[in-house]
Amino acid sequence: MTIRKGLQAFPRTEYLRRLAAVKAEMARREVDALVVTDGSNITYLTGYTAKSPNDPKGLVVSIHKQEPTFILRKMDVPAALHQTFIERDKVVGYPEALVGNSGMNGYDALIDFLFEVGLANRGVGLELGAMSALSAEKFKLRLPQATIVDCTSAVTWIRMVKSDLEIFVMKEAAAITDAGIMRAAEVIRPGLREADAIAEVLATLVRGANGKSGTMIETPYLCSSPRTGTSHITWSEDVFHQGSQINLEVGGVRHGYTAPISRTFSIGRPSDRLRRVHEAELAGLEAALGMVHAGCTCSDVAEAIHRTIEKLGVKKESRCGYPVGIDWVERTASIREGDMTALAPNMTFHLHLGNWMIDEEFGYVISETFRVTESGVEVLTCAPRKLFELN
Amino acid sequence: MTIRKGLQAFPRTEYLRRLAAVKAEMARREVDALVVTDGSNITYLTGYTAKSPNDPKGLVVSIHKQEPTFILRKMDVPAALHQTFIERDKVVGYPEALVGNSGMNGYDALIDFLFEVGLANRGVGLELGAMSALSAEKFKLRLPQATIVDCTSAVTWIRMVKSDLEIFVMKEAAAITDAGIMRAAEVIRPGLREADAIAEVLATLVRGANGKSGTMIETPYLCSSPRTGTSHITWSEDVFHQGSQINLEVGGVRHGYTAPISRTFSIGRPSDRLRRVHEAELAGLEAALGMVHAGCTCSDVAEAIHRTIEKLGVKKESRCGYPVGIDWVERTASIREGDMTALAPNMTFHLHLGNWMIDEEFGYVISETFRVTESGVEVLTCAPRKLFELN
Repeated sequence: MTIRKGLQAFPRTEYLRRLAAVKAEMARREVDALVVTDGSNITYLTGYTAKSPNDPKGLVVSIHKQEPTFILRKMDVPAALHQTFIERDKVVGYPEALVGNSGMNGYDALIDFLFEVGLANRGVGLELGAMSALSAEKFKLRLPQATIVDCTSAVTWIRMVKSDLEIFVMKEAAAITDAGIMRAAEVIRPGLREADAIAEVLATLVRGANGKSGTMIETPYLCSSPRTGTSHITWSEDVFHQGSQINLEVGGVRHGYTAPISRTFSIGRPSDRLRRVHEAELAGLEAALGMVHAGCTCSDVAEAIHRTIEKLGVKKESRCGYPVGIDWVERTASIREGDMTALAPNMTFHLHLGNWMIDEEFGYVISETFRVTESGVEVLTCAPRKLFELN
Repeated sequence: MTIRKGLQAFPRTEYLRRLAAVKAEMARREVDALVVTDGSNITYLTGYTAKSPNDPKGLVVSIHKQEPTFILRKMDVPAALHQTFIERDKVVGYPEALVGNSGMNGYDALIDFLFEVGLANRGVGLELGAMSALSAEKFKLRLPQATIVDCTSAVTWIRMVKSDLEIFVMKEAAAITDAGIMRAAEVIRPGLREADAIAEVLATLVRGANGKSGTMIETPYLCSSPRTGTSHITWSEDVFHQGSQINLEVGGVRHGYTAPISRTFSIGRPSDRLRRVHEAELAGLEAALGMVHAGCTCSDVAEAIHRTIEKLGVKKESRCGYPVGIDWVERTASIREGDMTALAPNMTFHLHLGNWMIDEEFGYVISETFRVTESGVEVLTCAPRKLFELN
């Protein structure tokens, strides 16, 4: 029996629109074939969200063909047929003998395909910032007649401006994010372990909101006193106590897209220091949101933040945000002074006023995911923008 | 205020033992400095489990020094001080100006460090299979006097034989895995969404077992009829119904280590086809476990499986397992015919009888995580080794 297509998150026309933008960029860079190996870019161009990061897989976008060809491990072909808009004859499985070998691997099958379709002696774009050095070496050795062009982030920059359909999905993700934050506010109390709070939050992030489940999990970050100065760590077995501060950052996921936010919680009355930092950071966040509109730069937004928080006695060293979508962190622009990227309608950012370097054992977080509009800004998340005081 | 060390999963002596093994391998490969950038290898050598995969970070192991130096984003220094055995003067933060740039980045700070300590003109090992082509190019350009040696998987092979302390932690992870499987058996019923089952399983994987919480989440794989032929996909919003088959693969995590297993569930009486496949695969799994002992090869184990299941009318194309530990899939040996890697005591494998290629819309899974002993095998997981029939 053959497998049927699953429910698609986006219509075929949406993928063809994305591919047309990619092909325009390929023409500009003079490549006939773009080999897309970054997992998020594959999701963007196909709808594939299955996860097997160890196995080489790649999408070959030819400037001469409407649809790309997806080359992946034979075992993963049914999932690709089920999840993506791509037709059966454009999904090619490579044999299991190429899995887990240190010499030949799935990229050899992809290179064979380039020869078969006459693309091996043309301009070939590779994502050299996402592909391992050994894999890139294989392409260079086996494609001596090709002109290899570094196309790192080429697709990622195209992803930066979302379609209305993508915004719709990101709002679904944002509603799940909000539910996760509100669940944390409900369950955090003295005596509970950090892990038990996260168990409740994760279950909420999967059950979802408004009848729409979370379709994947992004690891939440949670740290509580005396660890609030640490970034990027997860929960521990420690229990909360009266006076604990908790920093939490979560992102619901719909069809690969996330819309993260972070909030800070205090069990009982927050310290004066925490309250002062919160007020400054909140003012900075709102100054940033007040600045955002089509045509202003990332730097303008960052300057609004620094001006505001420094007046209130707080300095922030780390950048103030980054584009978000299929990746929690899209690697393109940064909201920071000196980044002259101009904002355009339907760009989406995670505006992050997280401040971990106040003191080694004291940090604070607040952030929002927003969309740029013609005249201003739309914040996608709705959780109260406050320091949560729990009793 | 400075941050204190957190509770360490392993004593300092354990890390020094691991580092000694790495240095012996470095001597064999004639490198004075090994730059460890693979996240799992960093966890192995330091205890660091925080997650910021976008930001360059690296551990410099010098053959001349007892302790390595950990170079990472300044924001992440408190987490490194808190989580790892490494002393303060060996944790070096690079400035935020190097974050999110396409030109200079954190690896420039790491290369500067190699110059400072006199290692820039020596043998320098890089993990070229894990490092991006652009990053490797940076090292080559900036270190013209160094002899760059590819050390891909050098540390991963050392990780393959676990210490008794690591086995202890993997058993804690295995107990959490079992709890996840048993929770699925409790909650799966007609009318429930796949997502709702996963919400319960994930919450269990975080709450943990025997008072020990899960310390991280590995994404579980769940697919149900008519999608059981798909691999590596996650849950959907579809509801289970009478007659549904469900394939589930989960791994609890303790201090970075996982011990995954998979089981197949049937709501109501399984079809004859499912029952026949289960019986063959179970026999194959048990034949494999009966074969395992120190000194036999991966190939011997695979042959026992194929001999057994083929007699019962089932063929399996994909490999039958791989080493497991800090990674769900350690990229070294494979349990497959022709892999002559000899098993040694305290190697741990995920023995996987998953069979996704029976039919595009019919697959089956069963697997165990085991430890090789001198005379045989110890299975780390305890969930009933059966086709779960749910009513």
